[in-house]
Amino acid sequence: MQKLDLMYTGKAKKVYSTDDETLCIFEYKDDATAFNGEKKGSFEGKGIINNKMANIIFRLLEKEGIRTHFVEQLSDRETLVKKVNIIPLEVIIRNVAAGSFSKRYGVKEGTALESSTIEFSYKNDDLGDPLINSYHAVALGIATRENIEEIKTLAFKINDALKKIFIEIGIKLIDFKIEVGFDSEGNIILSDEISPDTCRLWDAETNKKLDKDRFRFDLGEFGDVYHEVFNRLVEKYGE
Amino acid sequence: MQKLDLMYTGKAKKVYSTDDETLCIFEYKDDATAFNGEKKGSFEGKGIINNKMANIIFRLLEKEGIRTHFVEQLSDRETLVKKVNIIPLEVIIRNVAAGSFSKRYGVKEGTALESSTIEFSYKNDDLGDPLINSYHAVALGIATRENIEEIKTLAFKINDALKKIFIEIGIKLIDFKIEVGFDSEGNIILSDEISPDTCRLWDAETNKKLDKDRFRFDLGEFGDVYHEVFNRLVEKYGE
Repeated sequence: MQKLDLMYTGKAKKVYSTDDETLCIFEYKDDATAFNGEKKGSFEGKGIINNKMANIIFRLLEKEGIRTHFVEQLSDRETLVKKVNIIPLEVIIRNVAAGSFSKRYGVKEGTALESSTIEFSYKNDDLGDPLINSYHAVALGIATRENIEEIKTLAFKINDALKKIFIEIGIKLIDFKIEVGFDSEGNIILSDEISPDTCRLWDAETNKKLDKDRFRFDLGEFGDVYHEVFNRLVEKYGE
Repeated sequence: MQKLDLMYTGKAKKVYSTDDETLCIFEYKDDATAFNGEKKGSFEGKGIINNKMANIIFRLLEKEGIRTHFVEQLSDRETLVKKVNIIPLEVIIRNVAAGSFSKRYGVKEGTALESSTIEFSYKNDDLGDPLINSYHAVALGIATRENIEEIKTLAFKINDALKKIFIEIGIKLIDFKIEVGFDSEGNIILSDEISPDTCRLWDAETNKKLDKDRFRFDLGEFGDVYHEVFNRLVEKYGE
Protein backbone atom coordinates (compact mmCIF):
# COMPACT_ATOMS: atom_id res chain seq x y z
CA MET A 1 0.00 0.00 0.00
CA GLN A 2 1.63 3.25 -1.13
CA LYS A 3 0.98 6.59 0.58
CA LEU A 4 0.44 9.15 -2.15
CA ASP A 5 -0.97 12.73 -2.15
CA LEU A 6 -2.20 14.75 0.81
CA MET A 7 -5.95 14.97 0.10
CA TYR A 8 -7.16 16.90 3.12
CA THR A 9 -5.82 18.52 6.29
CA GLY A 10 -8.33 18.44 9.12
CA LYS A 11 -8.12 19.89 12.60
CA ALA A 12 -6.55 16.76 14.14
CA LYS A 13 -5.66 14.58 11.13
CA LYS A 14 -4.19 14.58 7.65
CA VAL A 15 -5.69 12.30 5.01
CA TYR A 16 -3.59 10.82 2.18
CA SER A 17 -4.60 8.96 -0.93
CA THR A 18 -3.12 5.55 -1.70
CA ASP A 19 -2.59 3.49 -4.84
CA ASP A 20 -5.93 1.80 -4.09
CA GLU A 21 -8.66 4.32 -4.83
CA THR A 22 -11.03 2.72 -2.28
CA LEU A 23 -8.57 3.25 0.59
CA CYS A 24 -6.78 6.16 2.21
CA ILE A 25 -4.43 6.79 5.12
CA PHE A 26 -5.21 8.86 8.23
CA GLU A 27 -2.24 10.51 9.91
CA TYR A 28 -3.08 11.76 13.40
CA LYS A 29 -1.56 15.08 14.51
CA ASP A 30 -0.99 16.30 18.08
CA ASP A 31 -3.28 19.32 17.53
CA ALA A 32 -6.47 20.03 19.44
CA THR A 33 -9.02 22.68 18.53
CA ALA A 34 -12.27 23.79 20.15
CA PHE A 35 -15.09 26.29 19.66
CA ASN A 36 -15.20 25.88 15.89
CA GLY A 37 -11.40 26.15 15.58
CA GLU A 38 -11.08 29.39 17.58
CA LYS A 39 -9.10 27.78 20.41
CA LYS A 40 -5.97 25.83 19.55
CA GLY A 41 -3.65 23.62 21.59
CA SER A 42 -1.83 20.30 21.59
CA PHE A 43 0.14 17.88 23.68
CA GLU A 44 3.07 15.70 22.68
CA GLY A 45 1.89 12.27 21.59
CA LYS A 46 -1.84 13.08 21.39
CA GLY A 47 -1.97 11.88 17.77
CA ILE A 48 -0.38 8.57 18.70
CA ILE A 49 -2.78 7.68 21.49
CA ASN A 50 -5.85 8.97 19.62
CA ASN A 51 -4.87 6.81 16.65
CA LYS A 52 -4.48 3.76 18.87
CA MET A 53 -7.64 4.45 20.94
CA ALA A 54 -9.79 4.93 17.83
CA ASN A 55 -8.45 1.66 16.42
CA ILE A 56 -9.07 -0.31 19.62
CA ILE A 57 -12.66 0.98 19.59
CA PHE A 58 -13.23 0.41 15.87
CA ARG A 59 -12.09 -3.21 16.26
CA LEU A 60 -14.50 -3.71 19.18
CA LEU A 61 -17.36 -2.13 17.21
CA GLU A 62 -16.65 -4.37 14.21
CA LYS A 63 -17.00 -7.37 16.53
CA GLU A 64 -20.47 -6.05 17.41
CA GLY A 65 -21.39 -6.09 13.71
CA ILE A 66 -20.96 -2.34 13.19
CA ARG A 67 -19.40 -1.39 9.87
CA THR A 68 -16.47 1.00 10.28
CA HIS A 69 -13.85 2.41 7.94
CA PHE A 70 -11.02 0.69 9.88
CA VAL A 71 -8.70 -1.54 7.86
CA GLU A 72 -5.26 -1.69 9.52
CA GLN A 73 -3.01 0.34 11.80
CA LEU A 74 0.15 1.14 9.85
CA SER A 75 2.24 2.96 12.45
CA ASP A 76 1.92 4.93 15.67
CA ARG A 77 0.20 7.79 13.86
CA GLU A 78 -1.04 6.17 10.64
CA THR A 79 -4.04 3.98 9.90
CA LEU A 80 -5.29 2.56 6.63
CA VAL A 81 -9.02 3.19 6.29
CA LYS A 82 -11.72 2.77 3.69
CA LYS A 83 -12.29 5.91 1.67
CA VAL A 84 -15.64 7.30 2.72
CA ASN A 85 -17.79 9.83 0.94
CA ILE A 86 -18.76 11.74 4.10
CA ILE A 87 -22.37 12.85 4.58
CA PRO A 88 -22.02 16.47 5.80
CA LEU A 89 -23.87 15.86 9.07
CA GLU A 90 -22.27 15.58 12.47
CA VAL A 91 -24.26 12.98 14.37
CA ILE A 92 -24.44 13.56 18.12
CA ILE A 93 -25.85 11.12 20.67
CA ARG A 94 -26.44 12.19 24.25
CA ASN A 95 -27.08 10.05 27.34
CA VAL A 96 -26.55 12.78 29.94
CA ALA A 97 -27.00 16.56 29.62
CA ALA A 98 -23.75 18.47 29.03
CA GLY A 99 -22.13 21.05 26.74
CA SER A 100 -24.27 22.87 24.17
CA PHE A 101 -27.34 20.84 25.13
CA SER A 102 -27.20 22.06 28.76
CA LYS A 103 -26.65 25.62 27.63
CA ARG A 104 -29.33 25.62 24.92
CA TYR A 105 -32.11 24.07 27.01
CA GLY A 106 -31.16 25.29 30.48
CA VAL A 107 -30.57 21.77 31.83
CA LYS A 108 -27.94 21.29 34.54
CA GLU A 109 -24.84 19.42 33.31
CA GLY A 110 -24.92 15.86 34.57
CA THR A 111 -28.71 15.46 34.41
CA ALA A 112 -29.50 11.98 33.11
CA LEU A 113 -31.85 12.15 30.09
CA GLU A 114 -35.11 10.17 30.17
CA SER A 115 -34.07 8.66 26.84
CA SER A 116 -30.94 8.96 24.71
CA THR A 117 -31.17 11.67 22.07
CA ILE A 118 -29.79 12.06 18.57
CA GLU A 119 -29.20 15.33 16.80
CA PHE A 120 -27.54 16.47 13.59
CA SER A 121 -25.35 19.45 12.88
CA TYR A 122 -24.88 20.59 9.31
CA LYS A 123 -21.09 20.41 8.74
CA ASN A 124 -20.46 23.87 7.36
CA ASP A 125 -17.76 26.05 8.93
CA ASP A 126 -19.12 29.27 7.37
CA LEU A 127 -22.50 28.70 9.02
CA GLY A 128 -20.97 27.51 12.32
CA ASP A 129 -22.20 23.89 12.04
CA PRO A 130 -25.84 24.74 12.87
CA LEU A 131 -28.25 22.27 14.44
CA ILE A 132 -30.40 20.74 11.69
CA ASN A 133 -33.27 18.28 11.87
CA SER A 134 -33.99 15.39 9.54
CA TYR A 135 -36.72 17.26 7.63
CA HIS A 136 -34.35 20.14 6.92
CA ALA A 137 -31.57 17.76 5.86
CA VAL A 138 -33.92 16.01 3.42
CA ALA A 139 -35.37 19.29 2.09
CA LEU A 140 -31.86 20.64 1.46
CA GLY A 141 -30.83 17.45 -0.36
CA ILE A 142 -28.11 16.60 2.20
CA ALA A 143 -29.46 13.06 2.70
CA THR A 144 -32.52 11.03 1.83
CA ARG A 145 -35.17 10.07 4.37
CA GLU A 146 -33.90 6.45 4.10
CA ASN A 147 -30.28 7.53 4.71
CA ILE A 148 -31.38 9.42 7.83
CA GLU A 149 -33.25 6.42 9.23
CA GLU A 150 -30.24 4.19 8.58
CA ILE A 151 -27.90 6.70 10.25
CA LYS A 152 -30.17 6.90 13.31
CA THR A 153 -30.26 3.11 13.68
CA LEU A 154 -26.47 2.89 13.26
CA ALA A 155 -25.82 5.70 15.75
CA PHE A 156 -28.00 4.20 18.49
CA LYS A 157 -26.37 0.80 17.92
CA ILE A 158 -22.95 2.44 18.29
CA ASN A 159 -24.17 4.14 21.48
CA ASP A 160 -25.18 0.80 22.99
CA ALA A 161 -21.82 -0.75 22.09
CA LEU A 162 -19.75 2.22 23.29
CA LYS A 163 -21.58 2.47 26.60
CA LYS A 164 -20.65 -1.17 27.27
CA ILE A 165 -17.04 -0.72 26.14
CA PHE A 166 -16.54 2.27 28.42
CA ILE A 167 -18.43 1.14 31.51
CA GLU A 168 -16.25 -1.98 31.56
CA ILE A 169 -13.30 0.35 32.18
CA GLY A 170 -15.09 2.51 34.75
CA ILE A 171 -16.12 5.31 32.38
CA LYS A 172 -19.57 6.78 31.72
CA LEU A 173 -20.33 7.78 28.13
CA ILE A 174 -22.03 11.19 28.45
CA ASP A 175 -22.29 12.03 24.74
CA PHE A 176 -20.35 11.60 21.52
CA LYS A 177 -20.08 12.79 17.95
CA ILE A 178 -19.63 10.57 14.90
CA GLU A 179 -19.27 11.09 11.19
CA VAL A 180 -20.63 8.63 8.68
CA GLY A 181 -20.64 8.25 4.93
CA PHE A 182 -20.71 5.90 1.99
CA ASP A 183 -17.94 3.38 1.31
CA SER A 184 -17.07 2.38 -2.26
CA GLU A 185 -19.87 -0.21 -2.22
CA GLY A 186 -22.50 2.32 -1.17
CA ASN A 187 -22.84 1.15 2.43
CA ILE A 188 -23.24 3.76 5.15
CA ILE A 189 -20.33 3.16 7.55
CA LEU A 190 -18.71 4.81 10.56
CA SER A 191 -15.75 7.04 9.71
CA ASP A 192 -13.60 9.73 11.39
CA GLU A 193 -12.42 8.79 14.89
CA ILE A 194 -13.73 7.87 18.34
CA SER A 195 -11.59 9.26 21.16
CA PRO A 196 -11.73 11.73 24.06
CA ASP A 197 -11.76 14.40 21.31
CA THR A 198 -15.17 13.22 20.12
CA CYS A 199 -16.76 11.74 23.30
CA ARG A 200 -17.53 13.19 26.70
CA LEU A 201 -16.22 10.57 29.13
CA TRP A 202 -16.61 10.86 32.91
CA ASP A 203 -15.06 8.59 35.50
CA ALA A 204 -17.94 6.38 36.70
CA GLU A 205 -17.06 6.81 40.38
CA THR A 206 -15.85 10.40 40.67
CA ASN A 207 -17.42 12.04 37.59
CA LYS A 208 -13.96 13.41 36.74
CA LYS A 209 -13.90 14.60 33.15
CA LEU A 210 -11.62 12.45 31.01
CA ASP A 211 -12.07 14.23 27.68
CA LYS A 212 -11.52 17.36 25.59
CA ASP A 213 -13.55 19.51 28.01
CA ARG A 214 -10.31 19.68 30.04
CA PHE A 215 -8.78 21.55 27.10
CA ARG A 216 -11.94 23.54 26.20
CA PHE A 217 -12.36 24.94 29.70
CA ASP A 218 -8.71 24.94 30.87
CA LEU A 219 -9.31 22.34 33.57
CA GLY A 220 -5.71 21.08 33.48
CA GLU A 221 -4.40 17.50 33.08
CA PHE A 222 -5.38 17.57 29.40
CA GLY A 223 -2.75 15.06 28.30
CA ASP A 224 -2.97 13.08 31.54
CA VAL A 225 -6.64 12.17 31.12
CA TYR A 226 -6.12 11.05 27.50
CA HIS A 227 -3.35 8.76 28.71
CA GLU A 228 -5.65 7.55 31.51
CA VAL A 229 -8.38 6.56 29.04
CA PHE A 230 -5.82 4.98 26.72
CA ASN A 231 -4.25 2.95 29.53
CA ARG A 232 -7.62 1.67 30.73
CA LEU A 233 -8.56 0.67 27.16
CA VAL A 234 -5.26 -1.14 26.57
CA GLU A 235 -5.39 -2.91 29.92
CA LYS A 236 -8.90 -4.25 29.27
CA TYR A 237 -8.93 -4.79 25.51
CA GLY A 238 -5.27 -4.87 24.42
CA GLU A 239 -3.68 -2.76 21.68
CA MET B 1 -70.91 33.15 29.12
CA GLN B 2 -69.33 35.47 31.66
CA LYS B 3 -65.88 37.02 31.16
CA LEU B 4 -64.01 36.71 34.44
CA ASP B 5 -60.34 37.13 35.42
CA LEU B 6 -57.43 38.09 33.20
CA MET B 7 -55.41 34.86 33.15
CA TYR B 8 -52.55 35.80 30.85
CA THR B 9 -51.31 38.76 28.82
CA GLY B 10 -49.48 37.70 25.69
CA LYS B 11 -47.69 39.77 23.09
CA ALA B 12 -50.78 40.25 20.90
CA LYS B 13 -53.64 38.91 23.03
CA LYS B 14 -55.14 38.85 26.50
CA VAL B 15 -56.74 35.66 27.76
CA TYR B 16 -59.65 35.71 30.26
CA SER B 17 -61.26 32.92 32.21
CA THR B 18 -65.02 32.37 32.01
CA ASP B 19 -67.63 30.75 34.24
CA ASP B 20 -67.09 27.53 32.24
CA GLU B 21 -63.72 26.13 33.24
CA THR B 22 -63.28 24.41 29.87
CA LEU B 23 -63.55 27.71 27.95
CA CYS B 24 -61.78 31.05 27.89
CA ILE B 25 -61.91 34.30 25.97
CA PHE B 26 -59.18 35.70 23.73
CA GLU B 27 -59.06 39.49 23.40
CA TYR B 28 -56.88 40.61 20.50
CA LYS B 29 -54.73 43.72 21.01
CA ASP B 30 -53.30 46.02 18.31
CA ASP B 31 -49.72 45.27 19.41
CA ALA B 32 -47.06 43.69 17.26
CA THR B 33 -43.71 42.41 18.48
CA ALA B 34 -40.74 40.85 16.72
CA PHE B 35 -37.28 39.46 17.48
CA ASN B 36 -38.32 37.81 20.75
CA GLY B 37 -40.16 40.93 21.90
CA GLU B 38 -37.27 43.35 21.30
CA LYS B 39 -39.08 45.29 18.56
CA LYS B 40 -42.52 46.68 19.32
CA GLY B 41 -45.17 48.36 17.17
CA SER B 42 -48.86 48.39 16.35
CA PHE B 43 -51.49 49.70 13.99
CA GLU B 44 -55.04 50.78 14.74
CA GLY B 45 -57.46 47.90 14.28
CA LYS B 46 -54.84 45.13 13.98
CA GLY B 47 -56.49 43.17 16.80
CA ILE B 48 -59.87 43.36 15.10
CA ILE B 49 -58.77 41.99 11.75
CA ASN B 50 -56.44 39.36 13.27
CA ASN B 51 -59.34 38.12 15.39
CA LYS B 52 -61.59 37.91 12.35
CA MET B 53 -58.94 36.39 10.07
CA ALA B 54 -58.04 33.70 12.61
CA ASN B 55 -61.72 32.84 13.01
CA ILE B 56 -62.39 32.61 9.26
CA ILE B 57 -59.42 30.24 9.00
CA PHE B 58 -60.33 28.16 12.07
CA ARG B 59 -63.84 27.66 10.63
CA LEU B 60 -62.37 26.50 7.31
CA LEU B 61 -59.95 24.14 9.05
CA GLU B 62 -62.78 22.66 11.14
CA LYS B 63 -64.58 21.88 7.86
CA GLU B 64 -61.49 19.93 6.81
CA GLY B 65 -61.78 17.83 9.96
CA ILE B 66 -59.03 19.63 11.88
CA ARG B 67 -59.74 20.13 15.59
CA THR B 68 -59.24 23.74 16.68
CA HIS B 69 -59.95 25.68 19.87
CA PHE B 70 -62.48 27.95 18.09
CA VAL B 71 -65.97 28.14 19.61
CA GLU B 72 -67.59 31.49 18.75
CA GLN B 73 -66.64 35.05 17.87
CA LEU B 74 -68.04 37.30 20.61
CA SER B 75 -67.14 40.76 19.33
CA ASP B 76 -64.68 42.52 17.04
CA ARG B 77 -61.80 41.71 19.36
CA GLU B 78 -63.12 38.82 21.42
CA THR B 79 -63.48 35.13 20.71
CA LEU B 80 -64.65 32.30 22.91
CA VAL B 81 -62.22 29.38 22.67
CA LYS B 82 -61.66 26.04 24.32
CA LYS B 83 -59.17 26.23 27.15
CA VAL B 84 -56.03 24.47 25.99
CA ASN B 85 -53.15 23.17 28.06
CA ILE B 86 -50.46 24.37 25.67
CA ILE B 87 -47.52 22.08 24.86
CA PRO B 88 -44.49 24.42 25.11
CA LEU B 89 -43.34 23.82 21.55
CA GLU B 90 -43.74 26.24 18.67
CA VAL B 91 -44.42 24.13 15.60
CA ILE B 92 -43.08 25.60 12.35
CA ILE B 93 -43.83 24.28 8.89
CA ARG B 94 -41.91 25.57 5.86
CA ASN B 95 -42.70 25.22 2.17
CA VAL B 96 -40.23 27.82 0.87
CA ALA B 97 -36.94 29.00 2.43
CA ALA B 98 -37.20 32.30 4.34
CA GLY B 99 -36.42 33.92 7.67
CA SER B 100 -34.31 32.07 10.23
CA PHE B 101 -34.14 28.98 8.00
CA SER B 102 -32.48 30.94 5.17
CA LYS B 103 -30.07 32.58 7.57
CA ARG B 104 -29.21 29.41 9.50
CA TYR B 105 -28.55 27.19 6.46
CA GLY B 106 -27.38 29.76 3.93
CA VAL B 107 -30.30 29.18 1.55
CA LYS B 108 -31.57 32.10 -0.54
CA GLU B 109 -34.99 33.36 0.56
CA GLY B 110 -37.61 32.17 -1.89
CA THR B 111 -35.95 28.84 -2.66
CA ALA B 112 -38.65 26.16 -2.90
CA LEU B 113 -37.86 23.24 -0.59
CA GLU B 114 -37.73 19.71 -2.04
CA SER B 115 -40.21 18.70 0.66
CA SER B 116 -42.07 20.62 3.35
CA THR B 117 -40.26 20.68 6.68
CA ILE B 118 -41.39 20.72 10.27
CA GLU B 119 -39.38 22.00 13.20
CA PHE B 120 -39.97 22.71 16.87
CA SER B 121 -38.85 25.58 19.05
CA TYR B 122 -38.89 25.20 22.80
CA LYS B 123 -41.17 28.02 24.04
CA ASN B 124 -38.95 29.58 26.68
CA ASP B 125 -38.27 33.33 26.57
CA ASP B 126 -35.23 33.09 28.86
CA LEU B 127 -33.57 30.64 26.47
CA GLY B 128 -34.70 32.54 23.34
CA ASP B 129 -37.07 29.83 22.06
CA PRO B 130 -34.26 27.53 20.87
CA LEU B 131 -34.67 25.02 18.05
CA ILE B 132 -35.34 21.58 19.55
CA ASN B 133 -35.78 18.20 17.92
CA SER B 134 -38.26 15.50 18.83
CA TYR B 135 -35.66 13.39 20.68
CA HIS B 136 -34.69 16.35 22.86
CA ALA B 137 -38.36 17.19 23.55
CA VAL B 138 -39.03 13.60 24.64
CA ALA B 139 -35.84 13.40 26.73
CA LEU B 140 -36.74 16.65 28.53
CA GLY B 141 -40.28 15.40 29.23
CA ILE B 142 -41.91 18.18 27.16
CA ALA B 143 -43.98 15.69 25.15
CA THR B 144 -44.16 11.96 24.59
CA ARG B 145 -43.02 10.29 21.38
CA GLU B 146 -46.73 9.63 20.59
CA ASN B 147 -47.65 13.31 21.18
CA ILE B 148 -44.88 14.36 18.80
CA GLU B 149 -46.06 12.00 16.05
CA GLU B 150 -49.64 13.26 16.46
CA ILE B 151 -48.48 16.88 16.32
CA LYS B 152 -46.49 16.22 13.15
CA THR B 153 -49.48 14.60 11.44
CA LEU B 154 -51.76 17.46 12.54
CA ALA B 155 -49.31 20.14 11.42
CA PHE B 156 -48.82 18.68 7.93
CA LYS B 157 -52.60 18.32 7.56
CA ILE B 158 -53.00 21.98 8.54
CA ASN B 159 -50.31 22.88 5.99
CA ASP B 160 -52.21 21.13 3.20
CA ALA B 161 -55.45 22.87 4.17
CA LEU B 162 -53.87 26.33 4.59
CA LYS B 163 -52.02 26.13 1.27
CA LYS B 164 -55.38 25.54 -0.44
CA ILE B 165 -57.17 28.27 1.52
CA PHE B 166 -54.51 30.83 0.62
CA ILE B 167 -53.79 29.89 -2.99
CA GLU B 168 -57.51 30.33 -3.71
CA ILE B 169 -57.03 34.01 -2.82
CA GLY B 170 -53.78 34.43 -4.76
CA ILE B 171 -51.44 33.96 -1.84
CA LYS B 172 -48.52 31.54 -1.42
CA LEU B 173 -48.00 30.04 2.04
CA ILE B 174 -44.23 30.27 2.61
CA ASP B 175 -44.15 29.08 6.24
CA PHE B 176 -46.18 29.32 9.43
CA LYS B 177 -46.08 28.76 13.16
CA ILE B 178 -48.76 27.06 15.22
CA GLU B 179 -49.28 26.23 18.86
CA VAL B 180 -51.09 23.12 19.99
CA GLY B 181 -52.15 21.58 23.25
CA PHE B 182 -54.64 19.42 25.08
CA ASP B 183 -58.30 20.34 25.38
CA SER B 184 -60.33 19.33 28.46
CA GLU B 185 -60.96 15.91 26.90
CA GLY B 186 -57.26 15.26 26.30
CA ASN B 187 -57.32 15.75 22.53
CA ILE B 188 -54.42 17.56 20.90
CA ILE B 189 -55.98 20.54 19.11
CA LEU B 190 -54.89 23.70 17.30
CA SER B 191 -54.78 26.78 19.51
CA ASP B 192 -53.37 30.36 19.39
CA GLU B 193 -54.06 32.18 16.09
CA ILE B 194 -53.42 31.95 12.38
CA SER B 195 -52.83 35.33 10.77
CA PRO B 196 -50.14 37.37 8.97
CA ASP B 197 -48.49 37.53 12.43
CA THR B 198 -47.90 33.78 12.35
CA CYS B 199 -47.63 32.98 8.61
CA ARG B 200 -45.34 34.20 5.86
CA LEU B 201 -47.68 35.02 2.99
CA TRP B 202 -46.48 36.18 -0.42
CA ASP B 203 -48.64 37.39 -3.27
CA ALA B 204 -48.70 34.49 -5.75
CA GLU B 205 -48.08 36.75 -8.76
CA THR B 206 -45.72 39.43 -7.49
CA ASN B 207 -44.15 37.74 -4.41
CA LYS B 208 -45.04 40.88 -2.45
CA LYS B 209 -44.80 40.17 1.27
CA LEU B 210 -48.21 40.30 2.94
CA ASP B 211 -47.17 39.50 6.51
CA LYS B 212 -45.32 40.58 9.62
CA ASP B 213 -41.98 40.75 7.79
CA ARG B 214 -43.16 44.22 6.68
CA PHE B 215 -43.02 45.22 10.35
CA ARG B 216 -39.90 43.18 11.20
CA PHE B 217 -37.83 44.73 8.44
CA ASP B 218 -39.53 48.15 8.15
CA LEU B 219 -40.79 47.49 4.62
CA GLY B 220 -43.77 49.86 5.00
CA GLU B 221 -47.48 49.20 4.37
CA PHE B 222 -47.64 47.08 7.55
CA GLY B 223 -51.34 47.77 8.19
CA ASP B 224 -52.20 47.87 4.49
CA VAL B 225 -51.08 44.31 3.78
CA TYR B 226 -53.01 42.92 6.78
CA HIS B 227 -56.13 44.64 5.42
CA GLU B 228 -55.33 43.22 1.98
CA VAL B 229 -55.19 39.64 3.28
CA PHE B 230 -58.32 40.21 5.38
CA ASN B 231 -60.26 41.62 2.42
CA ARG B 232 -59.28 38.72 0.17
CA LEU B 233 -60.32 36.20 2.86
CA VAL B 234 -63.69 37.90 3.43
CA GLU B 235 -64.40 38.24 -0.29
CA LYS B 236 -63.76 34.54 -0.89
CA TYR B 237 -64.96 32.89 2.32
CA GLY B 238 -67.22 35.46 4.07
CA GLU B 239 -66.83 36.72 7.62
